[in-house]
Parts: sequence; structure tokens; C-alpha cells
Amino acid sequence: MMRTRPLKVALLGCGVVGSEVVRIMTTHADDLAARIGAPVELAGIAVRRPGRVRAGVDPSLVTTDAAGLASRPDIDVVVEVIGGIEPARALITSAFEHGASVVTANKALLAEDGSTLHETAEKHGGDLFFEAAVAAAIPLVRPLRESLAGDKVNRVLGIVNGTTNFILDRMDSSGAGYSEALDEATALGYAEADPTADVEGFDAAAKAAILAGIAFHTRVRLDDVHREGLTDVTAADIASAKRMGCTVKLLAICERAADGRSVTARVHPAMIPLSHPLASVREAYNAVFVESDAAGQLMFYGPGAGGAPTASAVLGDLVAACRNKLNGARGPGESAYAQLPVSPMGEVVTRYHISLDVADKPGVLAQVATIFAEHGVSIDTVRQQGKDGDAWLVVVTHRAPDAALSATVEALRRLDTVRGVASIMRVEGE
Amino acid sequence: MMRTRPLKVALLGCGVVGSEVVRIMTTHADDLAARIGAPVELAGIAVRRPGRVRAGVDPSLVTTDAAGLASRPDIDVVVEVIGGIEPARALITSAFEHGASVVTANKALLAEDGSTLHETAEKHGGDLFFEAAVAAAIPLVRPLRESLAGDKVNRVLGIVNGTTNFILDRMDSSGAGYSEALDEATALGYAEADPTADVEGFDAAAKAAILAGIAFHTRVRLDDVHREGLTDVTAADIASAKRMGCTVKLLAICERAADGRSVTARVHPAMIPLSHPLASVREAYNAVFVESDAAGQLMFYGPGAGGAPTASAVLGDLVAACRNKLNGARGPGESAYAQLPVSPMGEVVTRYHISLDVADKPGVLAQVATIFAEHGVSIDTVRQQGKDGDAWLVVVTHRAPDAALSATVEALRRLDTVRGVASIMRVEGE
Repeated sequence: MMRTRPLKVALLGCGVVGSEVVRIMTTHADDLAARIGAPVELAGIAVRRPGRVRAGVDPSLVTTDAAGLASRPDIDVVVEVIGGIEPARALITSAFEHGASVVTANKALLAEDGSTLHETAEKHGGDLFFEAAVAAAIPLVRPLRESLAGDKVNRVLGIVNGTTNFILDRMDSSGAGYSEALDEATALGYAEADPTADVEGFDAAAKAAILAGIAFHTRVRLDDVHREGLTDVTAADIASAKRMGCTVKLLAICERAADGRSVTARVHPAMIPLSHPLASVREAYNAVFVESDAAGQLMFYGPGAGGAPTASAVLGDLVAACRNKLNGARGPGESAYAQLPVSPMGEVVTRYHISLDVADKPGVLAQVATIFAEHGVSIDTVRQQGKDGDAWLVVVTHRAPDAALSATVEALRRLDTVRGVASIMRVEGE
Repeated sequence: MMRTRPLKVALLGCGVVGSEVVRIMTTHADDLAARIGAPVELAGIAVRRPGRVRAGVDPSLVTTDAAGLASRPDIDVVVEVIGGIEPARALITSAFEHGASVVTANKALLAEDGSTLHETAEKHGGDLFFEAAVAAAIPLVRPLRESLAGDKVNRVLGIVNGTTNFILDRMDSSGAGYSEALDEATALGYAEADPTADVEGFDAAAKAAILAGIAFHTRVRLDDVHREGLTDVTAADIASAKRMGCTVKLLAICERAADGRSVTARVHPAMIPLSHPLASVREAYNAVFVESDAAGQLMFYGPGAGGAPTASAVLGDLVAACRNKLNGARGPGESAYAQLPVSPMGEVVTRYHISLDVADKPGVLAQVATIFAEHGVSIDTVRQQGKDGDAWLVVVTHRAPDAALSATVEALRRLDTVRGVASIMRVEGE
């Protein structure tokens, strides 16, 4: 039954992920052939610096001419693991134009310009698969695009960045400050030399945009995602969370509004109760909750980064793209028919935990409570702490629009009796 | 772009799951049409007793002629939610023969005769989808068949039966005995009037057969699965587990042998450490770990039963089957190329927790230890307890083949100084 002409694959990029793709394609060649229905051949590997290619990679396949490789008319599937916007975008576009399907792990590009890529794929009849772009090997893209295609997803809530989870986990377990935990993450290889994309939340925000897009059948771009990193999270915030029976996680949250007419997507640190399953996600692991009308609450958990796990996701997509090439079929394309508006952060309904440094004199609580009432924000609990003439008020609100909550905080800052706002953090997962 | 002729769906069975399928197809018709690319029409519903069809189901669609409906040449997709072997098998076969694709939730039939169904589907060019057959809406079949298609799965370990998990959870939390916990499960609707399929492990074993088959690309039938139910689990077993820092769960375990040349599949109660994520799966929830070479350890969690969650899985498959019908494509068929032998339980490597009622006199431990040594079973820990002239030995072994472990237990039973074997349970998840 098996045809003899092999399917040809071009690999763009051969770093941590790419070299694992090569390894698996080589060692598991027979299994891949049996699962696809035809042998699959690595026809070329484009890299910037051929001298740096790892051992085990056939040097005769290596080229620096990525554009030439991506546009070869005999290539069936192009695997893009370069990352970043350019030249990845131009190479993927060229691959589609020359008749190939594309498997990519490029979250930044998908969040920036996914719709254009989907349109190009559609126009030329190719597949665009990207399971590896979100949470590495944890199946999320395929379950959202296919398994839940008959359901209505209302919420996606998860830890989708391993670096920041490692940092927060260390801060929680050792009481370390942010800088110290980041240094440890860097030393252990969990954080890159320039950690900006992770710690400022750009990486998680790109994943949130991709997840929101497929969950809500709506185009969501990186710019639509409210983003706060964890560089301002202090040891005091973590200690505050502990006193509340919570821990702090950097969460990606995509929600359909209660009336169903709009959606939101955001990434920020938040307190979650220790009883929530996400609270026990340690080190660099990822976990994502998906809530939908019929299926209820599903959770997906696993390693969210790393060469081998990301390569596993790439290979799964590669098998699917090859099967489709062989059968003249196409996988699901972009589904953005719902076109729901993406609301700004101010309209997100959430809860705040606010820690205030206040003057220790009568009437302060009344003043503070009045500010909350004036902004229509209802208080859940207040805890007063006095220490050496100073006093602290720790307030946890009920659910309210983020705009009202942040306006409340601004008004509190202007009160004479409030010396400072020591900590503000949203509370989620309840 | 949308074509006007609708895709026609026949529903076989309209019980708890079927009526949810009808509800979602009706209320989400516009979304389904947008996601498929064509409207989808419920063309007929076959039931045994038309008088019992729930409110909201259009009576003009209802028929008692299931065979006639399944063989209608205008039907694109047949959804089978009757369950059991016949008439489901004949109806599905007829559906394929008349050109339809099939979506089924029928774990018993797939575990009994899945290969024949796959062959029939292949012969007539139809799709056979069955996500709903394992753990309801939790995506497991599609991730194993597609997301991990480029990886090598070594182990699937999970809680795949909600009824038995509810019973064990109650026994653990309240100290209740099995009968009492079963009564509570029945009263709350978690157990059926005849609970045999659940409590004897048949349901979990069917799911284990399906999961092992797709994980290992090998045909695995219900008869290949070693099966022990939980009817013999006592309150004393649960208490013993607690003393070890464990809890008892009914586990489905599919493993590739260390040498990679054979596989095993089994369902039995086992102690797992409280620190294992499966230990915290409460009530009727399901959770499954999948371990593979490249992806590492993934976990999938959610409601494993119920009308709406099962219907969510059915609808996801229905969308996929309809898309394929529309595009003249087919999803992945059976993948059983590896044809690995399924080894018997005796070859499974596991650990035993054994509780012995022994005579309280010198030399007993030496006798017992000799029996273990004679069978090549190494002891991890022994705890001696004396009470009113009686004595207890609680032994936890190191890993050994199940045949050696069970032969050890038989030899212990024959010792004069051993009055009885109070409890034997495997220890997993370490």
C-alpha cells in the first residue's frame, strides 16, 4: 500500500527545537512512514551559521539559503522553527506560494499576523499547523480547533510560560525576591540571557492571543491582549498571597463576556487559592484550563517548553500535514467567523487584593470604605494591621470591572491618610 | 462560500447522551454550520420507545426503524449512541456500506471488535471517530492519534471510570465500606441499578483496550486486558493505604515493555502516593497521564461521563466527519502496523503491598522473608504490628514481575505461621 516517492520536508532553523526534530525524524523514520503511509525525507536544513549545527545532523543537508530551500517546488512540508517575525514570515509565505504546507512553532508571528498566514495557506491550498506555538507538546491547539469544535468555549485560563512559573515557584518556596529567583532561573537555563519576552509577559501574551483566537473563532492579535509582566512582583506580594491561602501565578486568561457579545484576553500576575489545581503547577511546567458549555472544565498539563517536547508537537503536526498532502486533503483553516469585538482591560470583571500603608488614626477605614463605595466597588474583606505607629489595611474586593477597581486605587492614592499603595494584585480562580 | 445543501445526520439512540446531542445541534446550529462550512441537518432519530423521547426533540424525526435510518443513502454521518454490541455493530456496518461516516461513543463495541469496524470504514471510504468512547469530553483519542503521532508513547496511566472513582473517594474520605459507598453512588445517580460494568472494571478495561491500541499502534481487545474490579477493596485496605501516605484508585494502565517488544494493558485497584496528581482526582472526575519519549509526561483531566460532556466529544467528531465529507477527505484510519504482542499480567512489573495476619512468635519474619527471597522478590519495607497476642506483618516489595509476586503470596498462604493474607494491593505511580 505504501507509495515509494517520499514526502519531502524542509527544516528552517536547527537550534534546540530543530535539532530535536532532526533526531526524531532520523531515529523514528520507520514509525513515521508507517503512520503517514509514505516515507518522509528531510530534504534540507536552513541555518544561519552552518558551523554551529549539532552533531548528528547530516552536513550535506545544511544550507544558509533559507529562501531557496523554502521555495523549492519539490518540498511538501516546510517546518519553521526560526522564530521571530522576519525572515520567518517571508519564508512561510514563499513556502505556501510554492505549494508546500507549513508547520510552525512561531507564536510571535502567529500573534502578530496569523490571519495573513492563514489567508495565504487557504489561497494556495496548504495546511498551516502550529501546535508547538502554545505550551509545546501539551495538546491545546488541536483540542480547541477540533475536539471542542462542537462546543462553546467560555474561558481559557492557564500558566503558559515556564520561565515565569519557575521564578514565581522559587519566590513562593524560598521567599526569594524577584531578582534572586531570576538569577537562579538563568543559571539553570530556564531563563534566557535577555529574559524580557518571558518576564514582561510578551511570550504569554502571544499565546493568549492564539488561544483566544481559536477558542472564540475571532481574530485576536498581540495588541489586543492586556499585558503585565512579573517584574513588579515582590516577596511582600508573595507573603501577602500566602496569608490569604493563595499563591501568585502569571496567568493567561481569555474570556467570553457574560452576555456573549465580546471577549477579552489578558496576561498578568494574579493570586489564586492554593486549592486551585493551577496553584500546584511547579517549576517550569504549564497547565491550562478550558471551560466550555457542554464539556465543562478540562485541564491540560505538561512541560511547556524544551527541545524535545516542542519537537513532539512539531512532529505530530508534520504527520498530519504529510497525511493531508498524500490524500489531497486539508486540515481545518482559520475559523474567525464569530468576529467578536475584543474589549479593553477596563471591561474585564475581576477582583483586587489591595494592601495600603495608612496613618494609624481613627476614621481611616471609614475614608477608605467611602472611596470604594463611590466607585461602586464592593468590599469582600478588610484586615487591619498596626505596627509601631504605622498601620496597614488589606482589602479584598468583590468582583467589579477593572476600570472601577483601578479608578478606586487612584483615588485611594490621593487620600492624605494613605501613605502608599504597597501592593495591588488581581485575585482569580475562585 | 457556504454551500446550500445541508449535511444530513442520523442519530441512533436518544437517551442521556443522544438528547444532549439533539439539544446542542439545535441551539448551536449556526455555529456548527460556520465551523463546518455547510449547514448540518438532523435527518432522523432512531429510538426503541418513541414514547420516552425527551421534550425538545422534534417528534417528526423519531423512528423505531434504526436499520432503515442507518442505511438511508442520503445520510452523511451516522451518530451511534445506543451502546452495546448488537444492534450497534450491524447498524454501524450498514451505515458504512451505504456511504456514511460514523461517530460513536461505543467503548464496548470498539474494544470487542474495533478492527472490523475500522476495516469496514476503510473499505467504504468513511471516517470512524470515537472520542466520546473514552473519558467523555476529555480529548484523549485525538491527541493520541494525531498530536502524538510523531512521538513514541510508553505509558498511559489513568482514572477512566467515574463511578468507581466516586466510590473510592467516598471510602477514602468517610471511612465507609464498599457497599455503603456504592449505595451512596447509586442514590446520587453516579452508579447504575446494575453497577457490574463499572465496579467489576469492564468499562475501564474497554477504555484501556482502546487507549492501548491507539497509543501502541497495535490491536488490543478487551480479552487482552487484565481486569480486577473494586468489589474486594475493603475499608481496611483504604486505611492501610493511608498509613503508607497513599490512596486507592482503580487504574487503567497501558505500558510498553522496557525492551519495547511487547505491551500490556490492565485495570485494577492500586495504591498511589498522595503526592501523585491522580491521588487528588475526586468524585466522578477522570484524569489520564500519557508518557512519551519526546513530550514527556502530559496529563488530561475533566468530567469523564455525563450527557453534556459526552455530547461535546460526539459533536467535535461530528464537525470533523462533516468537514471531511464536504472536502472529500478522510481522517486517520486504524494504525496497527506495530502489531506488538500483548503480554499476560504475569509479565507486568509492579510492586505489592501485602498485609499478613501471623502468629506472634519468634522466627516468623525470617520464614516470611525466606519465601520472598525464594521467589526472587526483594522487600522494600516491613512493618510489624502486635495486638492482643496476634501480630501483623505489612510488607511492601520492590518491583518484580506480577507472576513472581503472586506466586510469593500463594507460598505465604501455605505457611503454618501465616493465619491469613488480609490484604494484597499493587502500588503504582512512583
